[in-house]
Amino acid sequence: MSSDADSTELVRDMGEFRLIDILRLTLPTPVRRGSDVVLGIGDDAAVLRLPENQSLVVTSDAMVDKVHFRLDWTDWRSLGHKLLAVNLSDLAAMGASPLGVVLTLGLTGEERVSDLVELYAGLGDLALRYGVVVCGGDVVRSRNALFLDLTAFGSVVPGQEIRRSGAHEGDLIAVSGMLGASAAGLALLESGDSTASTAGMLIASHLRPEPRLDFGKMLWKHGVSAAMDLSDGLFGDLPKLLYQSGVCARIEQDLVPIPAAVRALFPDHWFELGTAGGEDYELLLTFPPALRSGLTNAAAVVGSTITVIGEVVAGSPGGIVLIDTTGQESDVDTGAFDHFRA
Amino acid sequence: MSSDADSTELVRDMGEFRLIDILRLTLPTPVRRGSDVVLGIGDDAAVLRLPENQSLVVTSDAMVDKVHFRLDWTDWRSLGHKLLAVNLSDLAAMGASPLGVVLTLGLTGEERVSDLVELYAGLGDLALRYGVVVCGGDVVRSRNALFLDLTAFGSVVPGQEIRRSGAHEGDLIAVSGMLGASAAGLALLESGDSTASTAGMLIASHLRPEPRLDFGKMLWKHGVSAAMDLSDGLFGDLPKLLYQSGVCARIEQDLVPIPAAVRALFPDHWFELGTAGGEDYELLLTFPPALRSGLTNAAAVVGSTITVIGEVVAGSPGGIVLIDTTGQESDVDTGAFDHFRA
Repeated sequence: MSSDADSTELVRDMGEFRLIDILRLTLPTPVRRGSDVVLGIGDDAAVLRLPENQSLVVTSDAMVDKVHFRLDWTDWRSLGHKLLAVNLSDLAAMGASPLGVVLTLGLTGEERVSDLVELYAGLGDLALRYGVVVCGGDVVRSRNALFLDLTAFGSVVPGQEIRRSGAHEGDLIAVSGMLGASAAGLALLESGDSTASTAGMLIASHLRPEPRLDFGKMLWKHGVSAAMDLSDGLFGDLPKLLYQSGVCARIEQDLVPIPAAVRALFPDHWFELGTAGGEDYELLLTFPPALRSGLTNAAAVVGSTITVIGEVVAGSPGGIVLIDTTGQESDVDTGAFDHFRA
Repeated sequence: MSSDADSTELVRDMGEFRLIDILRLTLPTPVRRGSDVVLGIGDDAAVLRLPENQSLVVTSDAMVDKVHFRLDWTDWRSLGHKLLAVNLSDLAAMGASPLGVVLTLGLTGEERVSDLVELYAGLGDLALRYGVVVCGGDVVRSRNALFLDLTAFGSVVPGQEIRRSGAHEGDLIAVSGMLGASAAGLALLESGDSTASTAGMLIASHLRPEPRLDFGKMLWKHGVSAAMDLSDGLFGDLPKLLYQSGVCARIEQDLVPIPAAVRALFPDHWFELGTAGGEDYELLLTFPPALRSGLTNAAAVVGSTITVIGEVVAGSPGGIVLIDTTGQESDVDTGAFDHFRA
C-alpha cells in the first residue's frame, strides 16, 4: 500500500487529482511506463507505439457493484485482477497480444482510498505478468454504485485474428481447462458455506480467473478455425459462435470437463454449473480433426489443456444437440442467456 | 428511428442481444464498417488497421446520469453527440486524427429502446462527419443510474503529438473560439428560464459541443508548444498545463473571449462563467509570439478563431496572475477544481 494513503481516508476527502496520483504510483513501474508508452497518464490522451505492421485489437468489459461483483465476497485486490483478466481473456480469444488498457473508475466518493490502492495493486500485478501498460482513463463520480470499465487493446498480425465465424462442418469443438469451477465458487459464496476442502480453490476460480493469453497466441499457428472466450457459460456462448459460423453442434455430455470438486459438492446440478454457470474465462475452439494432437501439445507447452467435447455439424445456425450418457439426444435451450432478462 | 423498436419498449423487455443489434443498425453504414475496420461489433474484440507508421492515441470519458447530464435537460440525440464530442475533443488537443471508439452502456433496464436509438443516432451523426467508426463495446446492467463510457482512439505521426508539458517562458497563451457559452447554457437550464433570444444558442453550446478536430490537426505544423482541451474551465485547466510545463501565466481579463450574450444575461458573473464554468471544449494553446499570425490564419481556414489571452512567464509552476481592466494584478485561486470536493 502506498504510504500516501492512510487506511481510513475516503475518496471524497482526498479529491480527484491526488487520488489519481496515488493510484498511478501504486502500479509497478513497467506497467506505468512500458517501453511502448510515448505518453501515459496525465495528458489529454495517452500515446503508444504499436508493433509495426500489426492490426489493433480493442475490447471493453465493465463491472458494476452488486451486479458483477459483491464487495462482501471479493477482496479489492482480486477485483482489480478480475477486471483486467476478463478483458485480457477477450484478447486471448482473438489470438492477440495485449498492449495496454485505459480504465474508468465510477466512484461514489465513499470508497476508502486504501481499498482502491489494493484494486490497482491487483490489476498492476496481472498487468506486469503480461506486459500490459495502464496508460490512462477517467475518474468520475457515480451516484449510487461503484462501477469499473476497462478498455484493453492489443495487436495481431493482420489476417491472423481468430474470429467466431470460422467454424466449419466436421471441425472438432474443444475447450481449454475445466468448466464450472467459477460458477461453483460463486454458488459457495452465495450459500455462505465454504467449509469443503475444495471451497478455496473453487472460490479462487471465481474471483481470480486466469486469462489464456499464452495459449491464445498459438491458436492461429495451430489452425484453429474459430474461437471465443467463455464468459456466459458453454451453452450461452457456443450458440453465438455457431450462429456466426452458420453451423450447429453435437456435444457429448460425458466429455464436458467439469472438476470432480464441482460434481462432489453439487451432485444435483454440476452439469448446469459446468455448462451454464458462466465466468469460466476458458477458450472455446473449433479446428479440423487432423490438428487435434498438435493443438493438444501446444496447450501443454503453456501449461494448459484442451478437451474435445463434440463436433460441428450442418443445420439451422446456432443449435446444439446434447448426447447424454445413455446416448439419448436432446436440443439445448440456447435462448435463456440474457443479462437483462430474469 | 429503427422500425424494429416501438417507442415504448423498455430495455428490460427486449433483452441485450436484440438491443445491441438494433443500436448497431442505427449507425450509418460507414460508422459501422469503416474501411479500417477488419472486424467490428460482435466478436470478442474489434480489429482495426492503423495507418502505417503512426502512434496510437487513446482517451476515455464517462458520463453519469444526474452527475454529468440530466435527462430532463438534454434530448437523447444531443447526449449521444456530446458523449462522442468530449472524447474527440481530447484527441483534437493531442493533434491526433480519430479512428474509432468503443462504447459501454450501463443501463438500468428501464430505458426506452427508442431513446437509446436516438442516443446512437446522435453519436452516429457526429462519427460520420469525422470518419470515426464505432467498433464495439459492452452493455451492462447498472443498478440505479444510467452511465455511458466511451474510449476513443486515434493516430498521430510519431513525435507530432501535442503535449501539455511543452509551454515555454515567453510563449503566448491563446484559446480557440469563445468561453463561457456552455456554462451559461447550463445556468439557463438550471434556472428554467430560457426566454432570452440568445438562450437557444447558449444551451446548444452546452448540449452539443463541437470538437476542434480540424484545427487540432494543424497545431503541430504551426509550432504550437503545448495544448489541452478545456473541460474544467480556463482557470481549472490552465494550471494543469502550466504545472506540467513548469511555468506560470499572466492573463489579461479584457482579452478572455466571452460572448456578448453571456455578459448580457449574467452581468454579475459572466467572467466566472467564462473562466471557471467548464465544458467549453475549446483548445487552450501556447506558442512562440512569432507564430501568431500563421496560427490565426490556420484557425480561420477551418472556420475557427484563436484569441491571445496572455503569456507564459517564469515562476512557481501552475500559478496564474490575472490583470484586471484597471491594470491591477491578483493571484487566481487554482485549487478549487475537483470533481469530488464540494
